[in-house]
Amino acid sequence: MDYLMFQLEKEAKMPLYEQLYTEIKEAIINGTIEEGAKLPAKRKLADYLAVSQTTIEFAYSQLVAEGFISSEARKGFFVQNLEELALIKQESYVNVQEEKKEVDYLIDFSPGKIDTDSFPFTVWRKLAKDIISETNKDFLLLGDPQGDYALRQQIASYLYQSRGVKCTPEQIILGSGTEQIMPLIIRLLGKDAIYGVENPGYPLTHHLLVDDQQKSVPISVDAEGVIVSELEKTNATAMYVTPSHQFPTGAVLSASRRSQLLSWAYQKEYRYIIEDDYDSEFRYTGKPIPSLQGIDQNQRVIYLSTFSKSLMPSLRIAYAVLPKPLILQYKQKYSYYAATVPRMDQHLLATFMETGSFAKHLNKMRKIYKRKLEIITKTIMQYEPLVTISGEQAGMHLLLTIQSDKTEEELVLQAKKAGIRVYGVQEYMTGKLAVFTEPKLLLGFGGIKTEELISSITALIKALEITKTP
Amino acid sequence: MDYLMFQLEKEAKMPLYEQLYTEIKEAIINGTIEEGAKLPAKRKLADYLAVSQTTIEFAYSQLVAEGFISSEARKGFFVQNLEELALIKQESYVNVQEEKKEVDYLIDFSPGKIDTDSFPFTVWRKLAKDIISETNKDFLLLGDPQGDYALRQQIASYLYQSRGVKCTPEQIILGSGTEQIMPLIIRLLGKDAIYGVENPGYPLTHHLLVDDQQKSVPISVDAEGVIVSELEKTNATAMYVTPSHQFPTGAVLSASRRSQLLSWAYQKEYRYIIEDDYDSEFRYTGKPIPSLQGIDQNQRVIYLSTFSKSLMPSLRIAYAVLPKPLILQYKQKYSYYAATVPRMDQHLLATFMETGSFAKHLNKMRKIYKRKLEIITKTIMQYEPLVTISGEQAGMHLLLTIQSDKTEEELVLQAKKAGIRVYGVQEYMTGKLAVFTEPKLLLGFGGIKTEELISSITALIKALEITKTP
Repeated sequence: MDYLMFQLEKEAKMPLYEQLYTEIKEAIINGTIEEGAKLPAKRKLADYLAVSQTTIEFAYSQLVAEGFISSEARKGFFVQNLEELALIKQESYVNVQEEKKEVDYLIDFSPGKIDTDSFPFTVWRKLAKDIISETNKDFLLLGDPQGDYALRQQIASYLYQSRGVKCTPEQIILGSGTEQIMPLIIRLLGKDAIYGVENPGYPLTHHLLVDDQQKSVPISVDAEGVIVSELEKTNATAMYVTPSHQFPTGAVLSASRRSQLLSWAYQKEYRYIIEDDYDSEFRYTGKPIPSLQGIDQNQRVIYLSTFSKSLMPSLRIAYAVLPKPLILQYKQKYSYYAATVPRMDQHLLATFMETGSFAKHLNKMRKIYKRKLEIITKTIMQYEPLVTISGEQAGMHLLLTIQSDKTEEELVLQAKKAGIRVYGVQEYMTGKLAVFTEPKLLLGFGGIKTEELISSITALIKALEITKTP
Repeated sequence: MDYLMFQLEKEAKMPLYEQLYTEIKEAIINGTIEEGAKLPAKRKLADYLAVSQTTIEFAYSQLVAEGFISSEARKGFFVQNLEELALIKQESYVNVQEEKKEVDYLIDFSPGKIDTDSFPFTVWRKLAKDIISETNKDFLLLGDPQGDYALRQQIASYLYQSRGVKCTPEQIILGSGTEQIMPLIIRLLGKDAIYGVENPGYPLTHHLLVDDQQKSVPISVDAEGVIVSELEKTNATAMYVTPSHQFPTGAVLSASRRSQLLSWAYQKEYRYIIEDDYDSEFRYTGKPIPSLQGIDQNQRVIYLSTFSKSLMPSLRIAYAVLPKPLILQYKQKYSYYAATVPRMDQHLLATFMETGSFAKHLNKMRKIYKRKLEIITKTIMQYEPLVTISGEQAGMHLLLTIQSDKTEEELVLQAKKAGIRVYGVQEYMTGKLAVFTEPKLLLGFGGIKTEELISSITALIKALEITKTP
């Protein structure tokens, strides 16, 4: 311990040493200064608190006398074991008070997890090592407010090649996840914007809009994705969609709906589509689905994506591609904001992409997730038509439709009792159930180990009391 | 290049191969696909676009025939040098278009810079290496929404010891800089809150409030810090202050003002003080100034700080200590938000603090900045009373008051012409100039090398046309 900050009152009636003694004693009693901790050296503390060394000596002596601390020759002063003093422990300030956790599930089909067994730690470590270097001193300082150019360039190039997104690096802004980037977009579109949101849909977006007191209108989703004709009847000015793999249903927005959605945007000035392409890296079947941004002719699509699925959720790098008119507004409005992504991480990722490691990793992961999906499909197939799969064309989650007398809630609860976490689609609904009647469960498979998939699915099926098709 | 994403229309009149040929040709012409780039292998692209290999072959042949690409045996297809084809380059999508920079200053007294020569790269690299490891697979997934406990514990302990802040790790929330954390606090305090802000003050806070359409009232600052009696006459419900080292004046909030400010907060329910302690690690003279949070008896201080000054601006780790009633609200309101700080960075920093490297680094940097300050003071002293220093008790910037016939603006411009960036205090004013009459310049010295300080200051003095006191 180098310092201790106490406010000592020179004008107070209580002598300075006594004030100090009292403060330290209390800190020891309530656990703020832990057992075994070394107190600051007397001279150092005297300097720090701008009091005489005698004051410190007096205070320490008193504490030694009362057994709170002990003095060890040439080593210093150490806090003693208090239980021996049989003191009442007061509320602690610094001590660990781990927050109570929710039930620990045996199996968690969370859609937010990824396969952690296959992360290229060696390459990542090597790149980190290279970047944290004297030669990159400049990376300690703030970089470009939109994110460093090197990374934006890699992203622009990647998006063009794999998603058909047409943009320059100048149109890209980096942010620390949707939590950070969506509020910027919301403010950019102004207070009067009214947001169409998919129903069921991604809860975070819903919460961000509510927190920002922005008006939103739920638009139903069916097997072809969001029902654009429903949107057309509203006064929404912006539509938030997940066209490549709708969250949570997994539906892919059909070609006709895509044109219809773009036409909707073109009908009035300042109508925007916010395309969240969160897990489009992983597509397993059929023709590739280009981004809406790529087919938009009128700069009306705000493209949003993240490295959460493709690399790791904890990296916290998301990005938006803004249409040209909006990027100009952005520059004017947010010139005071520094990029929120650590700069070393930006360069680590840029190099990871530039050297081809990202493409390699994606290819590898695509195979792994595809394999997982095959195992799930094969296992579930035995229980058809009591259970059917949908939304499995892409991404890391799919939807199970269950034929059962029980409600979705009851099924989720049954699974919970068996230690299995699944998510009912109704959890993602805003307002009343519009389209779905049968219970539907969301199954994220990214986080389940390949070798544990069959047993996990089987355990779920058993918990749901579904019997094999004869 | 592994893929190319094009939307090919099977139903269109134009044959598929011709669509593909046109798309690639255009991409080459406008520079989206760069000279020398290798096109995807035919089979791979056919798989990816879900078309026959023949389609790809036809398209590639046509491009070879027209000289856009060349075929190299067993290597693949490569984009040719286009200048030889004398083609008109259209607007590029991916090519570099570096944004135009402001004037490059020879000397920049920016308050946002730090001494980059003394960063402990070796230790930091070693810790990064240890953390990016198979054994920490779990760090790939999302952690605690408020930030991982390990880091919050280190921060609580550090704050208690060095700033007298009394809090548990449960009261701490991490964020990616003030840009990210202030909006959360603003929303927590509700739409009806009215903010007192220091005048002159920190421009980012001002902009965040404006962007969020929150009401704010400028409160003047003098040599004792913010004038609380002025605050008392307003209808503000929250006061944003930088008491340890006011930004930009460098004033330290006096003891009487501190009590007055706390009393103001206690007078009504839901009045809060937002204490931004951004550079309090570096204090050079006098008694330590404990945080307002530490002397607050009624849970009315929201304490805010960052590692931008103490470690590096580009790390993007800031934190807030919320009063207990607010932390409960926070948990309810923001349960859907994941922490925005990359988890590996959180653990890197936690270990850096836990192992004592942080304390060591701070001690080292304190000496370096103190030395810089001494050099500046000594150099300036020769020009007194034409130039006087204030606000030098702490932090990494100070204030020069200039006796001159010229205005602040004219002086800043004169410096600019000499290639020197200084900041007039008026740049940080909201509305009319209330307290200051003489020109005052903000001088950040963190980023100027020790050996270049004398010459930099001398150059500035010369540019300002100030002559030595005889």
